[in-house]
Amino acid sequence: MKIFHTADWHLGKIVQGVHMTEDQRHVLEQLIEAARTERPDAVIVAGDLYDRAVPPTDAVRLLDDVLSEIVLDLGIPVIAVAGNHDSPNRLHFGSGFMKEKGFHMAGILERDAAPVILDDEHGEVHFHCLPFADPSVVRALYEDDSVTNHDEAMRCLLEHRCGNLDTAARHVLVGHAFVTPGAEPEENTSTSERPLSVGGAEYVDAGRFGKFHYTALGHLHRAHAVGNPLVRYSGSPLKYSISEETHNKGFLCVELDGEGRVSAEHRPLVPRRDMRTVEGTLAEVLEMPHSEDYVFVRLLDETPVLYPMERMRSVFPNALHVSRVMPVRPDATDKPARRMDEMDDAGMFRAFHEEITGSAPDEETEELFRSVLDELLANEHETVKEAVKR
Amino acid sequence: MKIFHTADWHLGKIVQGVHMTEDQRHVLEQLIEAARTERPDAVIVAGDLYDRAVPPTDAVRLLDDVLSEIVLDLGIPVIAVAGNHDSPNRLHFGSGFMKEKGFHMAGILERDAAPVILDDEHGEVHFHCLPFADPSVVRALYEDDSVTNHDEAMRCLLEHRCGNLDTAARHVLVGHAFVTPGAEPEENTSTSERPLSVGGAEYVDAGRFGKFHYTALGHLHRAHAVGNPLVRYSGSPLKYSISEETHNKGFLCVELDGEGRVSAEHRPLVPRRDMRTVEGTLAEVLEMPHSEDYVFVRLLDETPVLYPMERMRSVFPNALHVSRVMPVRPDATDKPARRMDEMDDAGMFRAFHEEITGSAPDEETEELFRSVLDELLANEHETVKEAVKR
Repeated sequence: MKIFHTADWHLGKIVQGVHMTEDQRHVLEQLIEAARTERPDAVIVAGDLYDRAVPPTDAVRLLDDVLSEIVLDLGIPVIAVAGNHDSPNRLHFGSGFMKEKGFHMAGILERDAAPVILDDEHGEVHFHCLPFADPSVVRALYEDDSVTNHDEAMRCLLEHRCGNLDTAARHVLVGHAFVTPGAEPEENTSTSERPLSVGGAEYVDAGRFGKFHYTALGHLHRAHAVGNPLVRYSGSPLKYSISEETHNKGFLCVELDGEGRVSAEHRPLVPRRDMRTVEGTLAEVLEMPHSEDYVFVRLLDETPVLYPMERMRSVFPNALHVSRVMPVRPDATDKPARRMDEMDDAGMFRAFHEEITGSAPDEETEELFRSVLDELLANEHETVKEAVKR
Repeated sequence: MKIFHTADWHLGKIVQGVHMTEDQRHVLEQLIEAARTERPDAVIVAGDLYDRAVPPTDAVRLLDDVLSEIVLDLGIPVIAVAGNHDSPNRLHFGSGFMKEKGFHMAGILERDAAPVILDDEHGEVHFHCLPFADPSVVRALYEDDSVTNHDEAMRCLLEHRCGNLDTAARHVLVGHAFVTPGAEPEENTSTSERPLSVGGAEYVDAGRFGKFHYTALGHLHRAHAVGNPLVRYSGSPLKYSISEETHNKGFLCVELDGEGRVSAEHRPLVPRRDMRTVEGTLAEVLEMPHSEDYVFVRLLDETPVLYPMERMRSVFPNALHVSRVMPVRPDATDKPARRMDEMDDAGMFRAFHEEITGSAPDEETEELFRSVLDELLANEHETVKEAVKR
């Protein structure tokens, strides 16, 4: 059985004020094209179909279009679960009608939902669909007070929903969670993933999925296997923050043979516009080749730059962000802070100049500072005298 | 063919701060029960399924429940169009999947949508579904600049979508519009219907529907035939404002025989709580029999009433509104207004008293006014004198 595993579409996402819908349509059309060519037996979307509970209507249209093409036109089932960004109830609407046409949407976490069962020449494959749910929801649903974090919630869910797997069938888990080896924190995160909870309570131990032939996960945006090659994130199909700059975006093509052995291959998707960092002085950046990419510009100029975004647009019309990178002296944090109240005005200025530029002000600069300060203080005295007169 | 015609469910409606979802479930369960007993061939919902574009999630659940019961459990097709309160895109989601299970949802106005075709022993019945659309949308969709109001929009839609009806079939139009005899204003309105546009541009001439065997309308909340017994509003299943107090709420059971002859019968739905006006002095109201109804209380007391809502709740725990009714003299508007600058203080007081209570003040009241006024004026003189001293 061939399965396309994808997740974290985040339809309706806005990055730095820019709607990503056209970028999303661009990569999802490649996914549809791959499905048309390769004819997988199923497409999994492991949560966060939308970026928010009430997505913009063009995102609703896009999802409807993509699902209709894959399921109705190509006849390939889609198996999806709600993620932490989705509204369970809104995504669940109509799922009773749609499943018989091949769109299996688990929006609401149901106590006793049956797996989606598909067949190939080797027999049945059971897809166990666990939409994202807060531990408090799981605790109430199964009346299990021991559920206090996401790892316990997963244990509880797997006990109740997958406690008694049919040994004649192969089993795939579809879930949306923050899974790490041994429920430990890890590095595979991006700023575009919304934390599920704080203080480590969000991690689920990858070891919990030992009984499945494959575990198709969503939530983390980098494609990777979690300790074990059978437990995988497909990653998002697009970069949704500059912290994902180095990710290879795409989807997974998973082959499940008759013995339940799995091979997973990452298939790249080509974005309409890449998202990347550009670094240099303004003069250097303005000499770079023109590009439509979504660039985050880091300016290295030491002197002020006026209207940097406007000037950047001549080279990078879709620049999303410009920042100034201030040089930091390597020993800046080692020095004991001097107390301000022990310094005179000139000393304070000298310390400030050193802090910002890394070197003491020269003679001329100190003289300029002194004359400006004197003038300001003189003016202040005048102002006070006039106020007293009135 | 037997058709249940209903409309204007307004799921998610809030009246005076009270969520109507349980009241809506209560009457829709009666609709489901009637469908179970009578086995109609179709149920029409002529727009405004939801009260707003983004309904609360419990309204989404309720709609999913009701549709699942009628279509999936009872096997009776539902044919629905979006109304002016609905979001076309959001309601349209998944319609491609759902129609084959028997839920036909026209959310977006499509240029060339085919009618929904159902059969009975006499042949085909074509349901032409026109979701609500603004004239500007119709004008753009069909590139017809003559469309400037709702009546023209309907003409244009009927020309393009129903210009060439199959004469061997029977035809039902399903629409959501403000239809009046001759596109004239009329009285059948309620404050819970949102105006479609202003200045008469919202009216559609009932004469436009002459070619249909039956026209099933939504928008106006009172069940009525528009000039012609073949063009009907089912009305809403519940009272959604006190201006609908005298409506008989329910749905229509429409029989369409093999010759295309129609009979329509109004079937009442019993609300969980009625919505009605209660009138009397506070003392009278507090003696009325206890009731859970949604009452709007009109208090006739001539003297001030403190905390009227709190006191009312002992008899009417679900009272939604309390107002004071001030007696108005029948001749109040006939008298020429007297000019204030021609009156002295006592004369002004006398006029005010007459205006408010309908009679001149008695001797004692005038005396009381004079003494209070004198005291106030004396105080004012003191205040002025003191201010001058400072």
